[in-house]
Amino acid sequence: MSELTHFNAQGRAKMVDVSDKKDSVRTARSTTSVLLNKAIYQQIKEGTNKKGDVFAVAQVAGIMAAKNTAQIIPMCHPLALSGVDIEFQWNVDEDANHYEVLLTAEVKTKGPTGVEMEALTAASAAALTIYDMCKAAGKEMVIGPTMLLQKTGGKSGDYLRK
Amino acid sequence: MSELTHFNAQGRAKMVDVSDKKDSVRTARSTTSVLLNKAIYQQIKEGTNKKGDVFAVAQVAGIMAAKNTAQIIPMCHPLALSGVDIEFQWNVDEDANHYEVLLTAEVKTKGPTGVEMEALTAASAAALTIYDMCKAAGKEMVIGPTMLLQKTGGKSGDYLRK
Amino acid sequence: MSELTHFNAQGRAKMVDVSDKKDSVRTARSTTSVLLNKAIYQQIKEGTNKKGDVFAVAQVAGIMAAKNTAQIIPMCHPLALSGVDIEFQWNVDEDANHYEVLLTAEVKTKGPTGVEMEALTAASAAALTIYDMCKAAGKEMVIGPTMLLQKTGGKSGDYLRK
Amino acid sequence: MSELTHFNAQGRAKMVDVSDKKDSVRTARSTTSVLLNKAIYQQIKEGTNKKGDVFAVAQVAGIMAAKNTAQIIPMCHPLALSGVDIEFQWNVDEDANHYEVLLTAEVKTKGPTGVEMEALTAASAAALTIYDMCKAAGKEMVIGPTMLLQKTGGKSGDYLRK
Amino acid sequence: MSELTHFNAQGRAKMVDVSDKKDSVRTARSTTSVLLNKAIYQQIKEGTNKKGDVFAVAQVAGIMAAKNTAQIIPMCHPLALSGVDIEFQWNVDEDANHYEVLLTAEVKTKGPTGVEMEALTAASAAALTIYDMCKAAGKEMVIGPTMLLQKTGGKSGDYLRK
Amino acid sequence: MSELTHFNAQGRAKMVDVSDKKDSVRTARSTTSVLLNKAIYQQIKEGTNKKGDVFAVAQVAGIMAAKNTAQIIPMCHPLALSGVDIEFQWNVDEDANHYEVLLTAEVKTKGPTGVEMEALTAASAAALTIYDMCKAAGKEMVIGPTMLLQKTGGKSGDYLRK
Repeated sequence: MSELTHFNAQGRAKMVDVSDKKDSVRTARSTTSVLLNKAIYQQIKEGTNKKGDVFAVAQVAGIMAAKNTAQIIPMCHPLALSGVDIEFQWNVDEDANHYEVLLTAEVKTKGPTGVEMEALTAASAAALTIYDMCKAAGKEMVIGPTMLLQKTGGKSGDYLRK
Repeated sequence: MSELTHFNAQGRAKMVDVSDKKDSVRTARSTTSVLLNKAIYQQIKEGTNKKGDVFAVAQVAGIMAAKNTAQIIPMCHPLALSGVDIEFQWNVDEDANHYEVLLTAEVKTKGPTGVEMEALTAASAAALTIYDMCKAAGKEMVIGPTMLLQKTGGKSGDYLRK
Repeated sequence: MSELTHFNAQGRAKMVDVSDKKDSVRTARSTTSVLLNKAIYQQIKEGTNKKGDVFAVAQVAGIMAAKNTAQIIPMCHPLALSGVDIEFQWNVDEDANHYEVLLTAEVKTKGPTGVEMEALTAASAAALTIYDMCKAAGKEMVIGPTMLLQKTGGKSGDYLRK
Repeated sequence: MSELTHFNAQGRAKMVDVSDKKDSVRTARSTTSVLLNKAIYQQIKEGTNKKGDVFAVAQVAGIMAAKNTAQIIPMCHPLALSGVDIEFQWNVDEDANHYEVLLTAEVKTKGPTGVEMEALTAASAAALTIYDMCKAAGKEMVIGPTMLLQKTGGKSGDYLRK
Repeated sequence: MSELTHFNAQGRAKMVDVSDKKDSVRTARSTTSVLLNKAIYQQIKEGTNKKGDVFAVAQVAGIMAAKNTAQIIPMCHPLALSGVDIEFQWNVDEDANHYEVLLTAEVKTKGPTGVEMEALTAASAAALTIYDMCKAAGKEMVIGPTMLLQKTGGKSGDYLRK
Repeated sequence: MSELTHFNAQGRAKMVDVSDKKDSVRTARSTTSVLLNKAIYQQIKEGTNKKGDVFAVAQVAGIMAAKNTAQIIPMCHPLALSGVDIEFQWNVDEDANHYEVLLTAEVKTKGPTGVEMEALTAASAAALTIYDMCKAAGKEMVIGPTMLLQKTGGKSGDYLRK
C-alpha cells in the first residue's frame, strides 16, 4: 500500500519537494452548496436584482481565498494563480421547501503542482461568506458537500468525478 | 420580512456597526466531516499510532484559520479569540465500506460579536487540510456537510441545532 | 515645536505606547476620488445597472483593507474595528468631459486609538481596485486627492475638515 | 465599445485567466505626493538629518505593500516581484507656504502580467505611512493625486504619461 | 509534575481558553544578537551615519512581526498590542575581532495574556532582517542566543532573568 | 570594500532587482536550538510518545513561516518554495543537567534568488513555537544560536559552514 507522501523520516509533516516537476497548465473545478431557508432565498434574490448582491461579496471572498490557499492549508505549495472564477446557481423546489445555492469554483495556473486545493478553498470561502451574510436570518444553513469535480494537467493525469 | 443587515443605503455590503454591543463571553461549536476511502483511513490510522499525524496538522490549520477568519470572510468582524479547539472522531463501518472522520471545532471569545464564523472556518480549514494531505491516495473525498451545532452568549441568545 | 511622537531615544521609529489611553467610541471619515474617461464611466454605469458591479468589488477591497491597516501601515496600532462602510458618488459633467467617482469611507471602533488611518486606507484600497478593474480601458486614471474629512472621539478631540 | 474584462458570464467579477500570456520583464513607475504643513516639514527634515527618518519607514511600508498587492486588490494576479524601489523628493516653496513631498515607486517583475497595481499600491502605502507618522502635527495633510507615470513590457506595449 | 497546557483530551494542540483571565497591563522584554564580521560592521556603521540604515529596516520588521505574532506562532492568542520598541547596541572588541549587535525588544499590551512571544518574535524578525540585508558580505553571521529578559503583569507574576 | 546592496541612490533600503538572474534549483539548510529544563524535556518526550506532540506543531509553524518569509523580512524577494522540511534531535546529557533540542530546516526552490532567509525563518519560527508551548513550565529557555549550515545553487556558488 502506498504511503502518505507528506511525512518525513521522523514521521512528521513536510512540504513535499516538487522542484523536479515541470511547469504546466493545470486547472481544477470544485463544487459546494449552501442549503438555506425560504426567507434567506428571497432576500438574496431581491438583492441580486438590485445592487445589493450577497454573491458578489462571496465571489470576492472565494477569489481572495484561492490566492491565500498556501496560507490556509499548511503543506500546500504556493502558486501564482493565473485565473479564478466562481459561479452560483439556484437549485430550488418551492413545493418541497428546498432552497439551495450551488457554487462551482474554477482555478487555473501554470506551475509545478495542481490547483485542487485552491479550487476547494475558493468554494469553501465563498460558501462561508454566504453563511456569514445571511446568518441573521437563520443559523441552520448547511454548507456542502464540498468536492472536486475535475482536474486537468500534471503528471498524475486528468480527473473527472463520476 | 426582515432585511439582510449587511447592506448600506446604496445597496452594497458593509461591515455592520457593532460598537454599541456589549462585550460578553461567547462560544460556538461547528461540525464537518471528510468521507474517504479505506486506504486513506488505514494510512491516517497508522500515522496517528506513530508520530506522523494528519490530524495534528489539520488541528493547527483549523486553529490558525479561526484566528484568520476576519481576513477570509469579508464582512466578518475581527475578534481576539480566547480559545480554539478541534476534535476528530472516526465514524467507520467496514462492512458498508464507510470511512468518515467527523470534526468538531469549538471557539470562545469575550467580545461584541459571536464566533459562529470562526468555528465554521476552523472546521472547514481542518477538513481541507485532511483532503490536501491525503489526496494523493484518492481525490474523490467529500467534505461536509458543514454546519453550526451550538452557540452561546450575545443578545440574540443561545442556539442549539436540533 | 512639538516633536514627532513615533521615534525612540535612538531616533528610530517605534509603535507609540497607548496602554494608558481609555477605550472610547471613535469614528473617522475619509474621501478620495478616481478621475476616469468616458468609456470607463459608461462601462461601470452599465455594470452597476446589471450585476457586474465594479463598486461592489471595490467596496469589499476597502473593507478588508480597513481591517488590514495595521499590517499595511507599520507603526499603526491593531484595532478591532466595529464597523466599516464605503459609498460611491458620481461627479460627472459631460459637457466638460469630466468623469469622476467620489468615494467616502467611514470606520468606527471602540478602542484606545483613532481610526483615521483605517478610513484613509479603506478609501485608498477601494480606489486602487477601481483602477485595477478598469485599467484595460485607460491607464491615465488619477486617484485622489485623498484626505480625512472628519474624526470623532479620543482625547485629542473631534476634527472636521474645513 | 470594448467591455471591462473582469466579469464572467454571470456578470460578476473574476480573476482574468492569464495562463496563455508569456513571461516577460515588466516595469511600472507611479507617483503620488503628500501635502503637509511647515511644522511637519521641519520635523521630517530634522529627522532625516539624524537617524529618525519618516521616509525610511514609509519606504519599508511601500515595499511590503508592493509584495502584498494581490492580497489588497481582489482581482490582481499574484506575482513574484523582482525589484521594488521608492524615492522621495521635496517640492517646497517657503514664500507660498507650500510644503509637499513627491514619491515615486518603481516595480519590476518577470511574469505574465504587468506591475502597474504594485507600483500604485507601493506609492499609496508609503504616502499613508507618512500621514500616519505625522498626523499628530496636522490632520489636514492631503495625499495624491496618485497616478501611473510609465509602464514597459507586455503585449499591450509601453505607456508613458504625457 | 504539571502537564503542558496546550493539549486537549485527544492529546492534540489547542489554543488554551483564556476567557476568564482579566485584562491587565503586561510588558515583556527580550534580547537577541547578531554576530558578524568586521566588513559588515563597518558597512552598517557607515550607513547609520548617513541615511542608509540597516537598523531602521530591522526596526520596522520587528514591530510588524510583533503585531503578526499570532499568525506566526500557532497556539498564540491574538492581542491588540499597545506599544512596541526595539533598540540596538554595538558590542565590539576590535582587538578580539569581535563584532556583535545586541537587540532588545519591548512590547506592551492591555489584555488577558502576556506578550513574551511578541517580544521574542520581534527580536527574532529584527535579527533576521539584519542577516538578510548583510548576507552578501558574509553568510557566517550567527543570530542569538534569543531569550526573555523580563515580563510584568498577569496572574503568574513578574519574571526577571537572573 | 564592497557596499551593502540593499540601498538606493537616496541611501534608503530597496528590494534589489533580480530580474536578470536565472531560475535555478537552490537549497538552504539552517539550524537553531532550544535549551530547556528537565521538566520540559520530560513533558515533550512524553507527548511525542503519545499523540500530543509539541514538535508537530513547531513543524507546521516552521513550514508556514518559510512560506511567509517575504512578509516577515522586508527586503526579501517572494519565492514559490518547492519544498520545506524540519527535523528535531535531542541533545541531552542528564549528568550535566543539559537538555537541548536541535532543529534543522531545509528549504528548496527553483527561482532567481536563494532561500537562506526562508531556512533561517523556518527554524526560528519552529523554535519560537516550542518556547510558546512550553513556557508555562519555565521561561528561562534559550533559543539559538541560529545560523546557516549550507546553501547550494545560484551564481554566488555553494556555501558550507565550517
